[in-house]
Amino acid sequence: MLNRVRSAVAHLVSSGGAPPPRPKSPDLPNSTSAPPAAPPQAPRSPPTRAGSGTAAPAKTVEARASFSRPTFLQLSPGGLRRADDHAGRAVQSPPDTGRRLPWSTGYAEVINAGKSRHNEDQACCEVVYVEGRRSVSGAPREPSRGQGLCFYYWGLFDGHAGGRAAEMASRLLHRHIREQLKDLVEILQDPSPPPLCLPSTPGAPGSSDSSHLVGPQSCWSSQKEVTHESLVVGAIENAFQLMDEQMARERRGHQVEGGCCALVVVYLLGKVYVANAGDSRAIIVRNGEIIPMSREFTPETERQRLQTLGFLKPELLGGEFTHLEFPRRVQPKELGQRMLYRDQNMTGWAYKKIELEDLRFPLVCGEGKKARMMATIGVTRGLGDHNLRVCSSTLPIKPFLSSFPEVRVYDLTQYEHCPDDVLVLGTDGLWDVTSDCEVAATVDRVLSAYEPNDPSRYTALAQALVLGARGTPRDRGWRLPNNKLGSGDDISVFVIPLGGPGSYS
Amino acid sequence: MLNRVRSAVAHLVSSGGAPPPRPKSPDLPNSTSAPPAAPPQAPRSPPTRAGSGTAAPAKTVEARASFSRPTFLQLSPGGLRRADDHAGRAVQSPPDTGRRLPWSTGYAEVINAGKSRHNEDQACCEVVYVEGRRSVSGAPREPSRGQGLCFYYWGLFDGHAGGRAAEMASRLLHRHIREQLKDLVEILQDPSPPPLCLPSTPGAPGSSDSSHLVGPQSCWSSQKEVTHESLVVGAIENAFQLMDEQMARERRGHQVEGGCCALVVVYLLGKVYVANAGDSRAIIVRNGEIIPMSREFTPETERQRLQTLGFLKPELLGGEFTHLEFPRRVQPKELGQRMLYRDQNMTGWAYKKIELEDLRFPLVCGEGKKARMMATIGVTRGLGDHNLRVCSSTLPIKPFLSSFPEVRVYDLTQYEHCPDDVLVLGTDGLWDVTSDCEVAATVDRVLSAYEPNDPSRYTALAQALVLGARGTPRDRGWRLPNNKLGSGDDISVFVIPLGGPGSYS
Repeated sequence: MLNRVRSAVAHLVSSGGAPPPRPKSPDLPNSTSAPPAAPPQAPRSPPTRAGSGTAAPAKTVEARASFSRPTFLQLSPGGLRRADDHAGRAVQSPPDTGRRLPWSTGYAEVINAGKSRHNEDQACCEVVYVEGRRSVSGAPREPSRGQGLCFYYWGLFDGHAGGRAAEMASRLLHRHIREQLKDLVEILQDPSPPPLCLPSTPGAPGSSDSSHLVGPQSCWSSQKEVTHESLVVGAIENAFQLMDEQMARERRGHQVEGGCCALVVVYLLGKVYVANAGDSRAIIVRNGEIIPMSREFTPETERQRLQTLGFLKPELLGGEFTHLEFPRRVQPKELGQRMLYRDQNMTGWAYKKIELEDLRFPLVCGEGKKARMMATIGVTRGLGDHNLRVCSSTLPIKPFLSSFPEVRVYDLTQYEHCPDDVLVLGTDGLWDVTSDCEVAATVDRVLSAYEPNDPSRYTALAQALVLGARGTPRDRGWRLPNNKLGSGDDISVFVIPLGGPGSYS
Repeated sequence: MLNRVRSAVAHLVSSGGAPPPRPKSPDLPNSTSAPPAAPPQAPRSPPTRAGSGTAAPAKTVEARASFSRPTFLQLSPGGLRRADDHAGRAVQSPPDTGRRLPWSTGYAEVINAGKSRHNEDQACCEVVYVEGRRSVSGAPREPSRGQGLCFYYWGLFDGHAGGRAAEMASRLLHRHIREQLKDLVEILQDPSPPPLCLPSTPGAPGSSDSSHLVGPQSCWSSQKEVTHESLVVGAIENAFQLMDEQMARERRGHQVEGGCCALVVVYLLGKVYVANAGDSRAIIVRNGEIIPMSREFTPETERQRLQTLGFLKPELLGGEFTHLEFPRRVQPKELGQRMLYRDQNMTGWAYKKIELEDLRFPLVCGEGKKARMMATIGVTRGLGDHNLRVCSSTLPIKPFLSSFPEVRVYDLTQYEHCPDDVLVLGTDGLWDVTSDCEVAATVDRVLSAYEPNDPSRYTALAQALVLGARGTPRDRGWRLPNNKLGSGDDISVFVIPLGGPGSYS
């Protein structure tokens, strides 16, 4: 309830006190302005379109501020209440009637078992049209050239310390990606290698003579080959950073106090880009084979990066933490004894004599789901969290918490995909209690029960995955068939079929 | 010739001006003292022993200072001259007569084609006995307990800017490893998990009561499980660092001006530990399958680590370098234009407006064998190089050049090895012109020509690998059968059979 009050207050001030955003380009995504409902220009072959945050119907101030679910769920006020019910934990999916998600993507979600007031996961599924800026060579675009690009986009955002960051990211991250791609529209459609150097400003006056592009011939040293693919990767990487910077700018006005993990998929020109910052996960299940498409970023997997930062910038530890890792907390009475440790360079352990500063709290401690960075947070990448401080301290977490994603690329054209080949995205609510093999088994079990051309099969699969992770209420808890506890966390799942995209690309 | 003079002068001052070493323990390896010819105590089942630097016969001052080869080659003065002949490039191996290397290890080497005055590779093959310090629990050792440990050791050291660092490392690195293992002798032989905390000083008075060991029961928080294996990894990691620190201390007196890559193998208690710092490489060929046991550390593979260091500690770049990477050198006339770049966080590329500081030389540039860090050096890990500066600058390379190895572990007991299963170590002279598959093909071709129990087959294999990388003199160069250029670098190869160790362990 307190949270709800806070959110309402937050929204009331959200259009006022925020410092003016410093846009990097004239149409930088802006969380305060109403997003356009449709892309500026229709794609050549209009793909199936689905609703999302950006195409959302107008909501009342209170509704958006207090609680929102992805608009593609098309929830009525009653449905919204049911989705918000911790006791029933009803699984939500887009309705059978109405438009399907692009590629017949399946989606399902369920609220947590009481861990937080609302479902702090958010999701987005969009077809995004990218209109090129004026010719990158400075020439005005000819009618026959400079056609825009379309990308398909899916995003899961697992919020913490409130749902505002996840909600903001679900509305805006794909628009940052679009912005980053605008300069690349011509380049990506030109089969020749990307120019290494471009004239000063996109859209600046210039001739259409391509000699303005500084070509390989004009440089005296060797040069690296840069692929089209790596430009898309760079665009996504920078979009994450710009999204994070926008959250930093707008945090006061909009009370974007929390943060979120972000797992997004971009399909562009035959390739699937999976970008991950946090502990959500993506796998491809192809002909029964499991292909991991992300890795989790936690204090355990990123130990050496965190320790290196603490070692090189000890001021970030504020005299409260040590960058060394110990297998357990060092106790004052152990001063002078020798304990196992490892520093930022080591993967093995060795003994060291315990000194006074080793009594500080370790930067990284704990294992598995209990691992924590600065005793505060269990993920090490994500968006937002600009106000997050170490508990009872003014020490910021942010320099250790990175907004950069890892991007993996999967070439859809290199393999003949069948209707049972899918890319599964899930927040940690799914993966905490479900192994990759269990997901693959569910894929096989559910999809084989439907006709290959039945588009509802992917939604059924997403629902089965969510249900399998949630369990059923029994013995004072949500339990799985093996009687272990199900996930009490928010659970969100996308199932993206890989066999169909050919007809959309 | 100049080099030879320098070396001779270097040696003459080597015993004088050096600051006194600060040993970490009473018998820290010391490069100035004559190393003991035999281990302090014989192992229980004395394994085949072979000569090495530490068991070297006394040499004249001049011989050692000017040029040395691994003592297990047992080179006569005439043999030493032939090994030093750039024109003939005769392949050197231990003689068929006399003691074989442990495990019937094969070894072969050849000098470069004129790149440097002497062969700057060095090698070491040793059986090292580790006598435990007094009981780690503080108790005096009982006669029945505290038996020492034996480890088998192979090392390849690829020197640059002179052979002194490689020579020093080949004499001393295994002794640093032995030092690090001394505290672990009892722990590694005890099947129970290693104690997390030990009394203050090894050998300090204490009771034999194991309650002195701070056990799991006495701590309030959760604790990590630490394996015996990770203690050995930690010991090797720290030994590399201590070797490097010793080079730093002794650099003035001994003129250890250059540096070296180090690739070492430790076999201990059923496991093979492969530690690598540099661009040498190790692979296992097992039943025709290739298992990489190391990765190369170059400006390309370590780009993000180097950029991160430059970003977090810009003072290390001295205003001369930029931590950003560009696909080619930026030119002053391109100021204000937009060029592709990537920073320490990015794997993709994006365009940025060129500013004045982007005209600085990039920290990392070039590709493949031409990749350079600070325009100076093509490897990013190794020992020594404490005096190395950026060309015509006082900027040190060292903070970017790391002495930490990556250690990979291979459990020999998990697979029934046959006599044709081998671990191949090679300096970059081998790998620059030989692929993993070519090595595997040579393994198959050469070993199948010998009886499985013929111990000379591994030397024959090492020789074949070296010859295959060197080529034969033809058309003004050393050429391979396909007429491509062979390696003009020093080439050194160990072939370690994995099928036999059972009888030694």
